[in-house]
Amino acid sequence: MTEQRVEPLVTWRGKVAPEWVDYNGHLRDAYYLLVFSFATDGVMDLIGLDAPGRAATGHTLYTLETHLNYLQEVKEAVAIVVHTQVLGVDTKRLHLFHTLVRQADGLGLATNEQMLCNIDTAGPRSAPFAPAVADRLASLVEAHRPWPRPAQAGCSIALPGTRA
Amino acid sequence: MTEQRVEPLVTWRGKVAPEWVDYNGHLRDAYYLLVFSFATDGVMDLIGLDAPGRAATGHTLYTLETHLNYLQEVKEAVAIVVHTQVLGVDTKRLHLFHTLVRQADGLGLATNEQMLCNIDTAGPRSAPFAPAVADRLASLVEAHRPWPRPAQAGCSIALPGTRA
Repeated sequence: MTEQRVEPLVTWRGKVAPEWVDYNGHLRDAYYLLVFSFATDGVMDLIGLDAPGRAATGHTLYTLETHLNYLQEVKEAVAIVVHTQVLGVDTKRLHLFHTLVRQADGLGLATNEQMLCNIDTAGPRSAPFAPAVADRLASLVEAHRPWPRPAQAGCSIALPGTRA
Repeated sequence: MTEQRVEPLVTWRGKVAPEWVDYNGHLRDAYYLLVFSFATDGVMDLIGLDAPGRAATGHTLYTLETHLNYLQEVKEAVAIVVHTQVLGVDTKRLHLFHTLVRQADGLGLATNEQMLCNIDTAGPRSAPFAPAVADRLASLVEAHRPWPRPAQAGCSIALPGTRA
């Protein structure tokens, strides 16, 4: 048991744009995922898969699967931040968990679990991470290993009382 | 065993817009969900929760949780269609399954499972579906009950070999 505070990994910051808001006056469900997609771009920058890194390696990431839990409505112009936890990696897959929070008070607004695959764009086909990318990912996994596993990780969808 | 063909329920048709395409030249992950979100609007129209229905009942739907599986890359201007299956309902929840297909040949491009909740916007708070909406939902559930359950329904995300 440690009392050590961990500083979250911030992968995106911004405000809810007017064109992201639906007829209810709230951030539309799909635009939460756009924000999380920008956060994944932030992770790509961190691990050396920014535009120059993609050009040098010939690699990029494709999303295989993604799961969102919506916790709160979010109105236009609200300042928001994405915190990211690397849940795991293998030779070519990256398992991420993003949490969208309100900047003012840290209230959790939504979560997004993602499974991504490293792709050699020459195929395109799946390929092992380039060594330098794999090293940076290993450091992130190691740093995030002590963090608590998010409650929404590994969720599946079912009506209450109907789960097989 | 029946040989009866079922006509899919089409809830959206369109083309991949230029602003939905990412640096890989493909439909960006978040914009698959925008297309599925439009398909959910199509379902709302069908069940009497279009704009006049929302005004009359004071109700709308919020997305609680959503899961996407990406099956194929999709390039700009490709004609696409969403097919929808209603997996279930209770007094205030709606469990949908959308499949995005290429119009030319019916190739499956992505799937999206959604759990939605009926909301009384006066709260906003969750509320039972209005009777006319509940009747239309019950008809859809009945019509779709014989359809095969999609392989991706009820999925959760994990690295291979790490599932708890």
